[in-house]
This record gives sequence, C-alpha cells and structure tokens, in this order.
Amino acid sequence: MSSSPAPQRTVFLNGSFVPFEEAKISVMDRGFLFADGIYEVAAVIDGRLVDARAHLARLERSLAEIEIANPYSIARWTELMADLAARNGLSEGLVYIEVTRGVAERDFPFPPRDTAPTVVMFTQAKAILASKAAETGVGVITVPDLRWKRRDIKSVALLAQVLAKEAAAKAGVAEAWMVEDGHVTEGGSSTAFIVSAEGTLVTRPLSNAVLPGITRLAVKKIAADLQMKVEERLFTVEEAHAAREAFYCSASAIVMPIVSIDGAPVGEGRPGPVARRLREAYLGLAREEGALDSDFA
Amino acid sequence: MSSSPAPQRTVFLNGSFVPFEEAKISVMDRGFLFADGIYEVAAVIDGRLVDARAHLARLERSLAEIEIANPYSIARWTELMADLAARNGLSEGLVYIEVTRGVAERDFPFPPRDTAPTVVMFTQAKAILASKAAETGVGVITVPDLRWKRRDIKSVALLAQVLAKEAAAKAGVAEAWMVEDGHVTEGGSSTAFIVSAEGTLVTRPLSNAVLPGITRLAVKKIAADLQMKVEERLFTVEEAHAAREAFYCSASAIVMPIVSIDGAPVGEGRPGPVARRLREAYLGLAREEGALDSDFA
Repeated sequence: MSSSPAPQRTVFLNGSFVPFEEAKISVMDRGFLFADGIYEVAAVIDGRLVDARAHLARLERSLAEIEIANPYSIARWTELMADLAARNGLSEGLVYIEVTRGVAERDFPFPPRDTAPTVVMFTQAKAILASKAAETGVGVITVPDLRWKRRDIKSVALLAQVLAKEAAAKAGVAEAWMVEDGHVTEGGSSTAFIVSAEGTLVTRPLSNAVLPGITRLAVKKIAADLQMKVEERLFTVEEAHAAREAFYCSASAIVMPIVSIDGAPVGEGRPGPVARRLREAYLGLAREEGALDSDFA
Repeated sequence: MSSSPAPQRTVFLNGSFVPFEEAKISVMDRGFLFADGIYEVAAVIDGRLVDARAHLARLERSLAEIEIANPYSIARWTELMADLAARNGLSEGLVYIEVTRGVAERDFPFPPRDTAPTVVMFTQAKAILASKAAETGVGVITVPDLRWKRRDIKSVALLAQVLAKEAAAKAGVAEAWMVEDGHVTEGGSSTAFIVSAEGTLVTRPLSNAVLPGITRLAVKKIAADLQMKVEERLFTVEEAHAAREAFYCSASAIVMPIVSIDGAPVGEGRPGPVARRLREAYLGLAREEGALDSDFA
C-alpha cells in the first residue's frame, strides 16, 4: 500500500499561489501595524466549501464598513478558495482569508486610494465531521467582554479574543463566553446559544455588540425547519446556568454542546438532544452540494 | 557643493539589520493575524533618542500585561535603537518598535511558550523641531471612543484609532479626540489637555481608559517646574470648548496647540502662551543630553 505524499503547502498571496515559506508580507503592511484588515474563515468538508457565499457576503460587508475595496467578486473569491483547497489537497478543514489596507509608510489615516490591498488566503486541515469534543461536550468559562464597540465588523483586531481564549485554554476548557452588563455577548470565536427550560432556543439578537454569525444563520434556519422555537434576546450567565442545554456554533466547530459553564454543569452535564439534532442536520446539509446557502443580507 | 547620498533604509528584524525591501514577516505572524503585539514610538532629535528609557519601560509593561516575554533589556533596546537610527542617518524623526507573539499556526490561544517573539524596528524621518502646525495651531474633531477596555496597553489593535484619525483627515484637521460618556478620553495618538479659565492645566487621570502617555509625564513635570497648576480629572467636550487653551501631546507632536474643536475656535482661535511655553521647555530639555528622563513607574 502506498499513499500519495502530502502536497507542499500553498498560500494565496496578492494574486499568486506561492509556497508557504515564501508567503511573507512587508513590515509596513497595515494589517501588521494597525490591525487594519478584515478576515473570514469558511469550512471545507468532503473537499467542498461550506456556505462560502454567505461568508464572502459578510467579508464584503466588513470591508465596506472600513472602506477597503473588495478586490474580487464573490464568484472570483469562490473560485480562488476552491483552487487553493484543491492545491492543498484539503478534504476537511478551513480556508482563511485576510484582506488588509495594504502596504504604506506608517501613518494612521488611510493611505492613498490607489494603495493595493493585501490579500492572503491559506488552508488548515482539521477534523470537522468526527469530533471527540462534540461527542463528550465541552466546558466554557465566562470572562468580561473587553472588545471594541464595532464587533459586527470581522476585523483582525483580535487581541481581546486572544486573551479570552487563552484564559479558556488555561482553565482547560474550549471556549470563553464574553459577558457585558451581565449578559453573554458571544464566544471568543463563536455564537452562544442556550435552550431554555421550555425548550426554546435563545441567542442574542444582532447589533454592534456581536458578530453576525454565518453558522448562527444556518442554525436558526435548521431550527425553524425542525419546528423548534427560536428567541433572539439577551440572556444572563444565570439563565445559562439554569438552561436545559447550552451550545456554541461557528464555521469550524459547527454546533458544539456545552456541558459546563465556569465549572458548574449545564443541565445533566452531558450533550443534550437539541445540540445533537442541530449538529447532525447541519452536517447533513453541509455534505449535500448547495444545500447550505445561508442568506447573509 | 556635494551632499552625501541618503543611506539605504535599514530595518531591524529579529536580531538582524536588513534592507527595507527584505523586512518581511510570515503571514502566520500573530501580529498580522490577531493584532497580538505591542508597539512603541520614540522621537529622535539632533540624532539622539528622546526619553527612550521611559518608552522602553512602558513597552516592558505592555508586553507583561499580555504575557509576551520582553526579548531585550532596556539597556540593550537603547543600544539597538541608537544603532538603527545611526545606520539610517536619522537626525530628526521617530524610531518605531513592534514586538508580536511570533509565528505559529493560526489558533487563538497562545502558541507554545518557546515561540520566539517577532521584533521589528524601523525609523521614519520627520521634522519635529520646526513645525508649521505648532506655529499656526491645529484643529481637532470629536468622535465616539470605540476602543476596547484596556487602552492602557499599547497594542497594535489600532483599527478604532485608524478610523478616528481618518475621520480627522477627512475633516481636514490634525487629530480626533475620542469621547466616552461625554468626557474626552484622549486623541487618536496623543494625550488631550485643556487650560481652564483659571489657567489650570487639566488632563484625564490614568486608568484602563487611556494610554499612560510618556510625553504627558514630561509635560506634567515641566508644568510643575514652571509653577503651573495641573489637575488630573475628567473633562467634557463643553469644558474644552470653553477652555482658554487646548493642546495635545505625543512623542512626535511634542506639544501641539489646538485652535479649533469641531470647527469652533478655542479661546482666541490661535496658539496660546501655555502650550507655547510647554513646547519650548520640552524641546529645550529634549536637546540637552539626559535632561528628559521621565519616570514611568
């Protein structure tokens, strides 16, 4: 038996596919100096992009909010993502996109309008379908939400999220739920849901306080199709502790059951049926070509 | 008559002095992906570093706050900064330092502890002593303070400041004062001061809401030496409009008189005597070897 060797890792950089080792940017890149850039992460399952159109629509919105011109159409982005995934032999994992305001002598205001944005894309292999964590459930901790006031923009100014997720890692759990004025905003890199005692799915409504999650959109639609009631409203940490179930969702974690919050068990301390059904339904759609096409308006 | 050619621009990168064109970092640098890094900017006047020890003490504090090990002692940093300035023939301008958590496969929590931080240093030539803006005074606008809650950490997560300073540039003024709960926090890259009707200097006290300014420290000391009264307290935009004078300070702007706020004149609409005296005193000390050595504790 023989297996083909892993292909050399390839990165997309400013219009070219280059070897990983050559994927370097100037120290004058505004992404490096000012966090003046936007990113997206989309999943790949069975070698196919999952819900990419919605991710790219959100990329376009984030770029517009900070006045960076989108270098490609959604159709062109999709081709480039698929090409990169194929070049890397990616069957299951993630495609990461970053677009910054480009390279210019360091100065806070925007550089001349003809400054080309920097475009970086790379892939990461990751098991998504078979997830030990999804079987056993995971813990989360709560931390104060330190972030800026425009969390609806998916910018690379992620230091607060890094610190939140490092606190989670130090506590031996998978995610940190960020809390503001007593209410959960979202996870460090995921949307927060609880299932109330009445069986209603509860998640925070969209605003500047949270990122408009793409997987959140899909979960809402699936829940509606499954005749589950979904309520978009603020919820407190206390409500989460008293919930029947809790879970988070993201492009890479899909639907992840939470079995403890700050060390105290949620419900019976094991993954619940709602999270399980949503996860299964999501993965079913994700593996069916074109079935998952969330409407990010 | 002949003049020596400008030296090739040299950047310090991870222990080496390299040509500007070769100063490139991996797309996996956490500074580029997560704004997971700290920076400092110190002035050079007459070819000499200004108040560098205090800037390096603040660098050390910021790094410690986000658990990045400081790669160099203050003495070694000072040598490297002076070496870089000399290699670039820098007589007047800035030295920029950035230290990030290094290069690692993209994942939010900290990478392994033995990951080497990325260290970048470059210089920018800039007129500091002779400033047309300081002679005429400048305008500022006010904008909502969108930043995160740990502004005492001088991180490269600067997107909110970029947007504030771009708004100022679009309005044709030099700086944006950020406002939170009706009170001025600070400028996009400077500390805000007003001079009250009674002649008292007023600036916001240190907290997580503002960066502990190095030039702010020097200005406070100079004001005390000049028998000026300094009050550290919050002030409103209305108080600033009614002030006798207003100014901002930073390592590169030194003391910059403000002659209008949101288009309305401050005082008599021209630079006032307090700002002028503080600027002159600062520059006098800055040009005297070792006279400016702020105590950043």
